[in-house]
Amino acid sequence: MLPERIRKFIDIFSALPSIGPRQATRLAFYLLRLGKNQILELSRAIQDLVNITTCKFCFLPFESNNNELLCHICLNNKRKQDVIAIVEKETDLVSIEKANKFDGRYLILGELDKTGILNTEQKLKLKNFKGHIEKKFKKAEEIIIALNPTTVGDMESALLIQELSPFAEKITRLGRGLPTGGEIEFADEDTLSGAIENRR
Amino acid sequence: MLPERIRKFIDIFSALPSIGPRQATRLAFYLLRLGKNQILELSRAIQDLVNITTCKFCFLPFESNNNELLCHICLNNKRKQDVIAIVEKETDLVSIEKANKFDGRYLILGELDKTGILNTEQKLKLKNFKGHIEKKFKKAEEIIIALNPTTVGDMESALLIQELSPFAEKITRLGRGLPTGGEIEFADEDTLSGAIENRR
Repeated sequence: MLPERIRKFIDIFSALPSIGPRQATRLAFYLLRLGKNQILELSRAIQDLVNITTCKFCFLPFESNNNELLCHICLNNKRKQDVIAIVEKETDLVSIEKANKFDGRYLILGELDKTGILNTEQKLKLKNFKGHIEKKFKKAEEIIIALNPTTVGDMESALLIQELSPFAEKITRLGRGLPTGGEIEFADEDTLSGAIENRR
Repeated sequence: MLPERIRKFIDIFSALPSIGPRQATRLAFYLLRLGKNQILELSRAIQDLVNITTCKFCFLPFESNNNELLCHICLNNKRKQDVIAIVEKETDLVSIEKANKFDGRYLILGELDKTGILNTEQKLKLKNFKGHIEKKFKKAEEIIIALNPTTVGDMESALLIQELSPFAEKITRLGRGLPTGGEIEFADEDTLSGAIENRR
């Protein structure tokens, strides 16, 4: 029914996370209506991502201009080199940066799967991380396990605290409590119990 | 915070229908993780849409190999040339084609806005459509107004029936009734009243 190229577009787009075949189909027709210039602009915006590299320490994608291996966060001398927050995703790093309260570095571990078992890539990241810390600081001043406060995140955090304790003076986790703007009446029991424990 | 190229990607993608900035951000990092080859594949799939043209009669996007002006549906001699279904969207056409019950042609009018007032492009499409019908058949055998059975669709259908009645022997609309697999208990009043009226 549909031209081969449209079908291919739908196939490829449907395979992206949280885009289904229906949305991909609508997107195809939407782009066709926009016309050539905007189709090419979109295509170029994607192609441009090829020029992005990944920081060798924290794995944040960045634009390497002079073949630097490290991103601007890792290279920033004003930030504490031996205070490291371990996050799951790039977007978690972006959120923490926006809070403007953290002046250390990061390690982007990659999304945890439902079982909470680290995959090969994640294990390798941790291994390199430990090697780097040991070699450069012997012990980090602080490692903050900044995983999501979910069942899997909590489980993995416990494992990481154990595994990384020889490599840091102090290992911490993000505080638990009521979200700002939240109401006690609607808070679930776990949140409330965290808020009581962490009262100040 | 984020590299310029990633920000641009997010900007452009967020502007697409039903993709928000959060989804666009996640998509960017997802693609970066996939790596160069898949980024280029996606970019090429979009770029390829440039080769798609729009049928001069029905406005269905199609791949024109020898500079044909009409799509394979409009060019198909086995289909009735003077039975035309007016639909809003390309996806409506695809759905009707899949039902495999219609052997006429189409006119893709374009999505109706909330006011139900036709925009300039839609008015032009109708004008050309009427001109074409008059010139070629004097009167079409049948025009099926296949707009969505919504308030706006119903309003617009009434207007179209009026406007197009001089150009067709018969103007019809899609049948109203219970959807196959639906349950009477859960049908809303309008659906049920349509089903009673259209009983057979």
